Amino acid sequence: MTAASNTHSVGVLGASGSSGAELIRLLSKHPRFSVSFATSRQYAGHSLRRVDPAAVDIELCHPDDADTSCVEAVFTCLPHGSSAPAVKRSRSGGARVIDLSGDFRLRDPETHRTVYGSPRDEQLAAEAVYGLSEFAEARVREAGLVANPGCYPTCTALAVVPAVKRGLLRGPLIINALSGVSGAGRTPSAKTHFCAAVDDVRPYNVGSSHRHVPEIEQSLRAWSPAGAPELPVIFNPHLVPLERGMLVTITASLPSLTPAELHEVYTDAYRGHDFVDVLPMGEHARIRAVARTNRAVIAIAPGHPRTRHAVITCAIDNLLKGAAGQALQNANTMFGFPIQEGLA
Amino acid sequence: MTAASNTHSVGVLGASGSSGAELIRLLSKHPRFSVSFATSRQYAGHSLRRVDPAAVDIELCHPDDADTSCVEAVFTCLPHGSSAPAVKRSRSGGARVIDLSGDFRLRDPETHRTVYGSPRDEQLAAEAVYGLSEFAEARVREAGLVANPGCYPTCTALAVVPAVKRGLLRGPLIINALSGVSGAGRTPSAKTHFCAAVDDVRPYNVGSSHRHVPEIEQSLRAWSPAGAPELPVIFNPHLVPLERGMLVTITASLPSLTPAELHEVYTDAYRGHDFVDVLPMGEHARIRAVARTNRAVIAIAPGHPRTRHAVITCAIDNLLKGAAGQALQNANTMFGFPIQEGLA
Amino acid sequence: MTAASNTHSVGVLGASGSSGAELIRLLSKHPRFSVSFATSRQYAGHSLRRVDPAAVDIELCHPDDADTSCVEAVFTCLPHGSSAPAVKRSRSGGARVIDLSGDFRLRDPETHRTVYGSPRDEQLAAEAVYGLSEFAEARVREAGLVANPGCYPTCTALAVVPAVKRGLLRGPLIINALSGVSGAGRTPSAKTHFCAAVDDVRPYNVGSSHRHVPEIEQSLRAWSPAGAPELPVIFNPHLVPLERGMLVTITASLPSLTPAELHEVYTDAYRGHDFVDVLPMGEHARIRAVARTNRAVIAIAPGHPRTRHAVITCAIDNLLKGAAGQALQNANTMFGFPIQEGLA
Amino acid sequence: MTAASNTHSVGVLGASGSSGAELIRLLSKHPRFSVSFATSRQYAGHSLRRVDPAAVDIELCHPDDADTSCVEAVFTCLPHGSSAPAVKRSRSGGARVIDLSGDFRLRDPETHRTVYGSPRDEQLAAEAVYGLSEFAEARVREAGLVANPGCYPTCTALAVVPAVKRGLLRGPLIINALSGVSGAGRTPSAKTHFCAAVDDVRPYNVGSSHRHVPEIEQSLRAWSPAGAPELPVIFNPHLVPLERGMLVTITASLPSLTPAELHEVYTDAYRGHDFVDVLPMGEHARIRAVARTNRAVIAIAPGHPRTRHAVITCAIDNLLKGAAGQALQNANTMFGFPIQEGLA
Repeated sequence: MTAASNTHSVGVLGASGSSGAELIRLLSKHPRFSVSFATSRQYAGHSLRRVDPAAVDIELCHPDDADTSCVEAVFTCLPHGSSAPAVKRSRSGGARVIDLSGDFRLRDPETHRTVYGSPRDEQLAAEAVYGLSEFAEARVREAGLVANPGCYPTCTALAVVPAVKRGLLRGPLIINALSGVSGAGRTPSAKTHFCAAVDDVRPYNVGSSHRHVPEIEQSLRAWSPAGAPELPVIFNPHLVPLERGMLVTITASLPSLTPAELHEVYTDAYRGHDFVDVLPMGEHARIRAVARTNRAVIAIAPGHPRTRHAVITCAIDNLLKGAAGQALQNANTMFGFPIQEGLA
Repeated sequence: MTAASNTHSVGVLGASGSSGAELIRLLSKHPRFSVSFATSRQYAGHSLRRVDPAAVDIELCHPDDADTSCVEAVFTCLPHGSSAPAVKRSRSGGARVIDLSGDFRLRDPETHRTVYGSPRDEQLAAEAVYGLSEFAEARVREAGLVANPGCYPTCTALAVVPAVKRGLLRGPLIINALSGVSGAGRTPSAKTHFCAAVDDVRPYNVGSSHRHVPEIEQSLRAWSPAGAPELPVIFNPHLVPLERGMLVTITASLPSLTPAELHEVYTDAYRGHDFVDVLPMGEHARIRAVARTNRAVIAIAPGHPRTRHAVITCAIDNLLKGAAGQALQNANTMFGFPIQEGLA
Repeated sequence: MTAASNTHSVGVLGASGSSGAELIRLLSKHPRFSVSFATSRQYAGHSLRRVDPAAVDIELCHPDDADTSCVEAVFTCLPHGSSAPAVKRSRSGGARVIDLSGDFRLRDPETHRTVYGSPRDEQLAAEAVYGLSEFAEARVREAGLVANPGCYPTCTALAVVPAVKRGLLRGPLIINALSGVSGAGRTPSAKTHFCAAVDDVRPYNVGSSHRHVPEIEQSLRAWSPAGAPELPVIFNPHLVPLERGMLVTITASLPSLTPAELHEVYTDAYRGHDFVDVLPMGEHARIRAVARTNRAVIAIAPGHPRTRHAVITCAIDNLLKGAAGQALQNANTMFGFPIQEGLA
Repeated sequence: MTAASNTHSVGVLGASGSSGAELIRLLSKHPRFSVSFATSRQYAGHSLRRVDPAAVDIELCHPDDADTSCVEAVFTCLPHGSSAPAVKRSRSGGARVIDLSGDFRLRDPETHRTVYGSPRDEQLAAEAVYGLSEFAEARVREAGLVANPGCYPTCTALAVVPAVKRGLLRGPLIINALSGVSGAGRTPSAKTHFCAAVDDVRPYNVGSSHRHVPEIEQSLRAWSPAGAPELPVIFNPHLVPLERGMLVTITASLPSLTPAELHEVYTDAYRGHDFVDVLPMGEHARIRAVARTNRAVIAIAPGHPRTRHAVITCAIDNLLKGAAGQALQNANTMFGFPIQEGLA
């Protein structure tokens, strides 16, 4: 694969996982990026199609054979913990990095240690930009390192940030989240066996024990106006029997506005944001509306007539807007391309 | 089908719907009940197997050919609105009736009118017993008419009544509910088309607009101690891509107990109740644990360390514990049989 | 939607069905075609997204409001029988037509009558080109009317034509075919209800009673060398519980070659055909490899050591290569565009 | 678990696999058998429910702690190769054995070696009875060791033995077989991952390379009349995206009878066989009709008007009639119980 003169060469570390393979698919159709290498320890020397017959027919190389200093950008799709050193090496070589792991998402070192338990370069962490595309474009544009948000935190943030920015919600935020099985990764396990996952719905880590909770709370704090009360989060994730897609249903107190007024706030907030659709009142977000796209759909409904709650639903594709799609959207921003490039 | 001398003859009105067919399957294996008639307007003269190849091979008759005065019990599995007159006729003929429709569930005439909009005999309604099996055994035993609870209200009530009885929860109850597609009935529609329902999760009627909300609120009032504050309900139902089963994930404020203490309350409350399993702390209710059974599984988890919430998950099979199974359990109680008879 | 000067305006009749909606999706991204109208009797005045939340947000118009004389090409995605008159009107107005229905697929008037029973203009039928893209490019290029092949006939023809052209197979061809539920159309029915189709495999019209059999036999005759013996077809279709995709597994006598030699024949035959992949010996065609693409994958395996049979598997997406994708591929050919345009 | 005086104690070796867990479920409801031990190397000391929340809550013990000499029957649900020594030990201890593995299915030692490659006691093999329940009742009744047939061979044999016994079919038999994912076992693998198996159909080992082919051929020879021509088999298995159930669609030459006449032969052959339903002409076998039961349904259809073929479809539940159900049916026969006991 040779890069045409008007394209930018990029590399993908960890291309055989679900997010990596999606990213390769997107990049291979992108008019301005060309993939210089796609690595996989397990499948080095084989085509990515060996992993998934629907994937791009690209040869995977061993990470030791990937020269990150020869590309302009590196996407790291490695497991948490393995990513941090690869990010550091890539940055040292001069490439801009979009990290799809959790290694640089949490700003606070102590929280990072508690949640992930793995070492990282804290100086790099301090300069990392949390790449929630719709709300961080200016900072992403200049970033050397973008920490690409997690799938649940992306879906949740898109659902609440317009309200949070104005201090409209009161906690606790009750977030019920449903994820397709691809969210559990490609490694075979008893949990992801077809016969265990089909015909089932499986809650897991409900309450506040999922490691995405601190990332969600960090976002809520980051986008809250100064002096706004904290918004505690109760996050109840479930595995549902479908491959791709994710839905959050968030119930929160909305003391000062009607749901219809909140709907207007959202319509305004997302005007001009191509990847976010705010549905008309009366409709609900559905996974089918967004699967295999980089779109998010958001809907707002009344909660309870006497208690002034709102119910916000938001759906995204966990592997695209929740991972590889947002990563490419961020890369488009970093390199000055239209954000829809390769994603429409 | 002739009834042996030691069996009780029963009839099923509306046997070709999902609940009716399940009930026929259960009754056909029950050692003490024998089915005298199973009616269907649409399939009269045909075997129930024409509707579903997995169903019992029983001939359906036209409702006009079913003599409800010749049986000891009638199960009505008719649509809301059509059921009320059939219940009245059946009661007039002397049979005890288990009504699986919504026609006699709401005690308050005004609420009934608002929710269902269909006429009913209010005297019959006044004497109907709301048949939430685990908590109404004594009244069901003597009942002439049992209003069999709805699927969502059953699942929700089993999840909260032990706490509600002691006034332990504070509202609003945030109930996120997931139902398999069989909950939408057997009538073909755009919504239940395989290609619309598969690979999707679809919220509908979120907030407080689902017609099961008043039934849930009625249960909460009925089992609350005198003087307890009202518990507003925010009920967010979703369709998930599986055939059978239902899960509720309920988040509520638990001001005075720890979740572990609440777990003890539940373990005590359900001791001796064969159809309800309270899982150990750390586990969660899953649909696979209960599909095709009359069981409910319930789990309790901490919500948020600072806000003292609990998250309660409960799973049932919507067609069994949420419809036909509970109906038979109630019939067992009415006729003095062990409640497991035909349901184990 | 205004057509840029370098684009060709097209219309789609019957845009709310499964194939029509797919076609709209493809056309809306095609750089050289622009959609002037998309009709639907049932949904006129509404967005196509009302039918499917994943569809393009295009407004549907009533067929009476669609002027087929103002476009350069018309795609008819109407039901069999309804299509023929629309095709005639469109041709009369001067547009080139790609007909996705069965109305012009069968050349022989008598066979057409027997199979479809609906009238058509036999002169139009005589000039229609059967648009099996990979084998009819020259004729399609000049065609005024292309009869776009059926899904099963496309999948079968791609699987056997290279062998049939050389007279390598002996009948009967035993064709076992599996189709996702989208093949049954979007109209709700007992058969396509989620709860009937999930967890089931359902054979239907096995033997030679499916209406695609005469179309398959016509193809076999058309591509057989002069004097080759007839190839009787036993065609066993089944519905399988997935939305999209189709697989045929064909067993046939291969008297004069080994399967490995046949594999070489296929590799040669499809060299340079971008949409057809012949897999290495030892692999099999899978639906996942082709779903949501215009690709076909074909594999060849030995049948039985003593009897000299071959087993050929071929998979396509029934709505793309089996309908809308092939239609667009044909339109690309008709208008002189690269066949991959809008389909890669 | 103590055995009542009128029950027979049995043990299950390998209870945590799919077939073993099904067998435990059946045995736990059986009025005449009581389970003395259920072994699992991996889950010893845990409840079977740890493996599957829908399973019976029975404690698994280590195989070293299971005394096979204290039970009247042993069911071996171990992997091929591991089963043979366990069978030998169990027989030595005096128990009658039903072996669900492939270790004693193939009578010919040479074929066994070629197919399974694992050693076995050939004397035991010589006395093993191949337990195709419907056709081997007399021999099973007296057997010390029953080799329980494989799932595909059971489904195929039920579909053809009535015709084969009369020498009505001519080969090759083209057997297209579809199996739910539970047929691939419970061990997690890339192939059984939800995201690989859903939305796919996957042929594998087509032709004559599947290890069930020799077992099928052995059955064909065993039930063919003396002097009948051999029936070569082309066996094309596919994985389909559902958990349970299996369907074979068999196309074969039927030179001397019409399909309708063959249908009569089948109706006669299976009269009085409670677990086999021969459907009326015009219907087809479906997986939904048999899933979670010990039933088989069989249908016969015309193949091709000119070539005199028949198409036979047969569906069973692979884990029940194709494994644990047939094993229990055989045990019922061995102990003189009605064959429906515990299986109705």
